[in-house]
Amino acid sequence: MNTYNPVTDEVVTALKNIVGEKYVKTDAATLDVYKADESLAPSFWRTPEVVVSAGSTEEVSQIMKVANTYRVPVTPRSAGTSVSCGAVPAFHGIVLLMERMNHILEFNEDGMYMSVEAGVRTIDIQNMAHSKNLMYAGDPCSADSCLIGGNLATNAGGNKAVRYGTTRHQVYSIEVVLPDGKVTTLGATLKKCSTGFCLDQLIIGSEGTLGIITKAVLKLVPLCPYKLDVLAVFTDLSKATALVPKLIKAGLNPTSVEFMDNNFVRSASDYSELRLPHYEDGCYDIISIETFNEDELDDKMEKLAAICEACGATDVVEADDRVWKVRRNCLESTRIFSKVATSEDLVVPVTKIADCIQTLVDESKKYDFRVFCLAHAGDGNLHFQILKCDMSDSAWEKQLKEFRAVAYRYVYDLGGRLSGEHGIGLKRLDYMEQYTDPVELDLMKTIKHAVDPNWILNPGKVISAC
Amino acid sequence: MNTYNPVTDEVVTALKNIVGEKYVKTDAATLDVYKADESLAPSFWRTPEVVVSAGSTEEVSQIMKVANTYRVPVTPRSAGTSVSCGAVPAFHGIVLLMERMNHILEFNEDGMYMSVEAGVRTIDIQNMAHSKNLMYAGDPCSADSCLIGGNLATNAGGNKAVRYGTTRHQVYSIEVVLPDGKVTTLGATLKKCSTGFCLDQLIIGSEGTLGIITKAVLKLVPLCPYKLDVLAVFTDLSKATALVPKLIKAGLNPTSVEFMDNNFVRSASDYSELRLPHYEDGCYDIISIETFNEDELDDKMEKLAAICEACGATDVVEADDRVWKVRRNCLESTRIFSKVATSEDLVVPVTKIADCIQTLVDESKKYDFRVFCLAHAGDGNLHFQILKCDMSDSAWEKQLKEFRAVAYRYVYDLGGRLSGEHGIGLKRLDYMEQYTDPVELDLMKTIKHAVDPNWILNPGKVISAC
Repeated sequence: MNTYNPVTDEVVTALKNIVGEKYVKTDAATLDVYKADESLAPSFWRTPEVVVSAGSTEEVSQIMKVANTYRVPVTPRSAGTSVSCGAVPAFHGIVLLMERMNHILEFNEDGMYMSVEAGVRTIDIQNMAHSKNLMYAGDPCSADSCLIGGNLATNAGGNKAVRYGTTRHQVYSIEVVLPDGKVTTLGATLKKCSTGFCLDQLIIGSEGTLGIITKAVLKLVPLCPYKLDVLAVFTDLSKATALVPKLIKAGLNPTSVEFMDNNFVRSASDYSELRLPHYEDGCYDIISIETFNEDELDDKMEKLAAICEACGATDVVEADDRVWKVRRNCLESTRIFSKVATSEDLVVPVTKIADCIQTLVDESKKYDFRVFCLAHAGDGNLHFQILKCDMSDSAWEKQLKEFRAVAYRYVYDLGGRLSGEHGIGLKRLDYMEQYTDPVELDLMKTIKHAVDPNWILNPGKVISAC
Repeated sequence: MNTYNPVTDEVVTALKNIVGEKYVKTDAATLDVYKADESLAPSFWRTPEVVVSAGSTEEVSQIMKVANTYRVPVTPRSAGTSVSCGAVPAFHGIVLLMERMNHILEFNEDGMYMSVEAGVRTIDIQNMAHSKNLMYAGDPCSADSCLIGGNLATNAGGNKAVRYGTTRHQVYSIEVVLPDGKVTTLGATLKKCSTGFCLDQLIIGSEGTLGIITKAVLKLVPLCPYKLDVLAVFTDLSKATALVPKLIKAGLNPTSVEFMDNNFVRSASDYSELRLPHYEDGCYDIISIETFNEDELDDKMEKLAAICEACGATDVVEADDRVWKVRRNCLESTRIFSKVATSEDLVVPVTKIADCIQTLVDESKKYDFRVFCLAHAGDGNLHFQILKCDMSDSAWEKQLKEFRAVAYRYVYDLGGRLSGEHGIGLKRLDYMEQYTDPVELDLMKTIKHAVDPNWILNPGKVISAC
């Protein structure tokens, strides 16, 4: 296990020399802001010793050199919208803010790519692409506040992953500052390449443990002019989830397939003061289809309706704004039941999602907490919202641990994983060690150790030190 | 630089104990077969000391342990269809054949995936998927003879890469034997995942230097029922290539866009004894469109024809079997001009392909060889066929070196790379060292050294030892 040195005045001075005095903060109020992310998991929060805001790749590079010289850990931070404590400084030290590097460097319409700094907001990228009839397909739910660097570091998923893949699939290349401060560009603006190791994909999704992404060239795709969202209502949960692989196999190529169980239908409808079909007993699939051609959309809609009905849907209607409002209010709507809650981000093969939801919902009934289920069903990603309600703290901790032991083992037996899109961060570190194949885990640690021998960059995330 | 030990009788005995006597060959005739691949580049051929055929993952694992114990290098080999000398044993030692591991282990129609051993022929995977209205989208030109393990190791490209991506995009997971003999599965049969480093993509395309892929779970996609191939004829080379990014941006989502210059149109037409439009002065784009809907196909065809005409096409006709026959005969047809030839596999951004072809064709006129140009234009991948014709050996070597120096520098300045789909192997090793950013190259070597400290697995490929 590595040990780190405290951030001394000498370190602070060195950092000020790099970025300028006003971008180095050591006051308690600032440090307190950067101890947390959006996880609402205080037991994982850690206070940094210094917060530094970098303005350029060169500054990031110099900061890493200082950090190695003084053996002080560095935790890069985007907008802090993570819910896995990936941007929390596990070993204190330096929190490195990327938000000043917020320039869109190039928008090439003909080449259909955009070159951006890591601190650009995802929504700004989406909007700029949109303005020229193009689309950036990365679309995490926090797009209006998160930064692209964080999306890249965590391989963020989101609303369009069924059709377009996750953040790692939207990338031509990344500029990276390695743990030793050296800078390189990995990947290239090419449709295909068999020239050396695929290091870009290794860095993307490594949650800032192998390198700090400072810039990226992102792929854009043509914007589909035709779009329709459908709400398929089922009174049988397993039928609602069994629909999903059938949609994929029929070549409908949906942009998203979202699932809400009846708990969420009720609570979010109540919260939104809207009454949607089968409030009492309905489970919902919301399916988005986009096409380049009107006939194609009509054709897909016919096929979609036929499949939904064959799968036992009681209603198949256009999903209007009311449906999306209810969907958006899901998490917020649970506050009335419980102020304390935790969200799971399990992912399973799409064919297993019906079994998985049913089994885990049944299992959850053995415990005193309540479980509400949302899913990005089209990509097998389950967001179980577990509500503490009126349980004691000790019973909550104990039962949660027991439920997770059963749930995670079951998900891994199905071929699933701990996180579909939120990442491991600090929060799931112990589970990562427990559920990952030891050979794979060793290989990750071997690579981490080779690339970052001082374990200076975001230590304590994804994998623990050997 | 590592040194290796010779393959002694003791090593041979150890290998026979693992796989059985009949699967270990040391006779000169067998060794001679495995000195080469399909590159026709005798200066890169190397004779192995022993050829071993593995029947299982466990055997591959044990062979790697023996190789480390005795410090004997191992070169894994699929069907040997590489043209980059990736499967040639650079430091002699053991050639490890994967062809006995040729079982399709599972074909899951609902889950749309196939689990296969590394030695399965690519065409057998394609055909099995096809039989159930599904498609495996990896489609290298050698599909009828190459094995999937080689496709994965080199990230093979091929005929459908414009729409579906290269081999690395068709993979859910791989089983890998690491250089030390340990076995793990990387990746999972999941649509999304943010659980740990993306090690599967690191291994895929590393040309057997970081691990031996023994099994893979491959993605299948729904087979499109409607298809049309179009031949667009241009009398101006730059107009033919300028078409490509316009097709992509229009959302036509072509499966392939192939380009042939007039040299190839003439030589392949003559060879095929067929006369196609504008034999004397035509450059060809052959565009394949596939859809799930007949109206959609009609609509795309209308748009395609309009774009081709706006780009200056003189003829836009259906590309029938005659066109594909001519396309297939391209390489063979050059033999009449030159028995000795070399093929480049350069790749550039799709927007740069017109400039690139024009500039390199102009540059080539300064030399005594002839250059014919084919391209997987839709993905920016150029196959320049350079014909020695009646040049002396010394002039050929000298001028080829000079041309490559200009061409490679130019391609890198455009943001391109040495290899789009053939890989680096032994053949392009020196150029890889020369043109790759030193920080990136160091990072590759750092990872290689960490994962394979004895440099026992396929040494001398992609990167040279430190």
